[in-house]
Amino acid sequence: MSGGAYVHGYSEREAERLRDQARTLTSLLHDSVRYPPGSRVLEAGCGTGAQTVILAGNSPDAAITSVDISPESIRRAEDRVMAEGITNVTFQVGDLFSLPFDPESFDHIFVCFVLEHLADPGRALRALRPLLCPGGTITVIEGDHGSVYFHPESRAADTAIRCLVDLQREAGGNALIGRELYPLLVQAGYADVQVSPRMVYVDASRPALVEGFTRQTFTAMVEGVRDTVLSRGMMEKDEWKKGIADLKRTCEPDGVFCYTFFSATGKV
Amino acid sequence: MSGGAYVHGYSEREAERLRDQARTLTSLLHDSVRYPPGSRVLEAGCGTGAQTVILAGNSPDAAITSVDISPESIRRAEDRVMAEGITNVTFQVGDLFSLPFDPESFDHIFVCFVLEHLADPGRALRALRPLLCPGGTITVIEGDHGSVYFHPESRAADTAIRCLVDLQREAGGNALIGRELYPLLVQAGYADVQVSPRMVYVDASRPALVEGFTRQTFTAMVEGVRDTVLSRGMMEKDEWKKGIADLKRTCEPDGVFCYTFFSATGKV
Repeated sequence: MSGGAYVHGYSEREAERLRDQARTLTSLLHDSVRYPPGSRVLEAGCGTGAQTVILAGNSPDAAITSVDISPESIRRAEDRVMAEGITNVTFQVGDLFSLPFDPESFDHIFVCFVLEHLADPGRALRALRPLLCPGGTITVIEGDHGSVYFHPESRAADTAIRCLVDLQREAGGNALIGRELYPLLVQAGYADVQVSPRMVYVDASRPALVEGFTRQTFTAMVEGVRDTVLSRGMMEKDEWKKGIADLKRTCEPDGVFCYTFFSATGKV
Repeated sequence: MSGGAYVHGYSEREAERLRDQARTLTSLLHDSVRYPPGSRVLEAGCGTGAQTVILAGNSPDAAITSVDISPESIRRAEDRVMAEGITNVTFQVGDLFSLPFDPESFDHIFVCFVLEHLADPGRALRALRPLLCPGGTITVIEGDHGSVYFHPESRAADTAIRCLVDLQREAGGNALIGRELYPLLVQAGYADVQVSPRMVYVDASRPALVEGFTRQTFTAMVEGVRDTVLSRGMMEKDEWKKGIADLKRTCEPDGVFCYTFFSATGKV
């Protein structure tokens, strides 16, 4: 039964690895975001609550209001938060561009993985600013798909990633928004804007990130646009397959994969 | 005379900014490299001593031996070190691939901005390994020109940078070597290899880096291959000019520029 025992042991280790990876990324993006007891925090664009549970867990004595334009997303976020036993979050359906709050209702605003989907992220940032009381802060976290590079190099993989960027731009978003956070916040009238890049560097010495980030997060996301890319002839089928295979090739023992998130803060 | 006073004040500030920038980059790359008193350190490929003075300054009680294949470079490095009043460095002309030292002659080896110029960096790393005593470490620092991205985006600037990468490859080097340090060190037989990316993030809130890194270091380096690129028809003159102008455009108040160095360590 040593084979069985090994498989069991392996999947235990595997689960632990994935938990490690989730913790690593969570720390990378969230550890600097902790709000004092009693502070009023707006999470603008909470989606289904993936970041809400981390945000609320890290600031257990802040009063968090999480809004999203989709009632269905809000329902799922409520379920998720309840399942985690979190009690400091209030949910509300609302449009980022015209939220139903009085001016200066919040001490802090948190916006994570939202601006990338908006046609006019600057307008969203300007709409949020009056909701902050004097001295209040905004924190914005976004990725940047143009920050990706890897070893071995692959033109097919570069092209596949560019398809994802192009499709997001067509849909009115911007997958390269991370690098733009500084000018966006400054132009929206925030003061003391500071940007902190958060680079994810992955090689074989970090197996949790190889699996959890390179393969199951980034490569899986690129694979998600396969049907659109092929049906619209953005890439030939063989080139696409090579692109995906080359991304997975970076998960081999001699492969390396790099991606950078950006975290920005501004004040009122 | 207020105009004159301003100009004077400005150039004072300007000089201070450049010193700040040099310190910022020096800290980014060198702060983690400090060798204990009495340790025997080999700097392999010291060139004209730009890194030697920092290395020796940070480890004033280590005995540093700096070698380079070029007698002329060694002469200039000696002058530089003497001008700084540094006394813990011995210079020697020598070929990285066949250095005139007994096995296990050193406790630590330091290699900075050297591997990028070598046709077979793996062979260099293998040649150095026997020179380390058991428990000894190697530190390798390299850039990666493929880690560059910026705002606003520019295809012409991307192409100009790619010309630099292609020319370095033609010359037998590899301007994208930073991302490869992990597999290179592992394959050369070093143990416990750890890579630490050192990202230079530049926006208008960091004026010393705008001038000192984006404009005067990176853009100047790309401009350095202008004549070769144009004479060989790698780019049209107008496209080249646009590429350089677009790199300088990232130095404007709403511009952003990103570059990543890699620092790797391994053990014997």
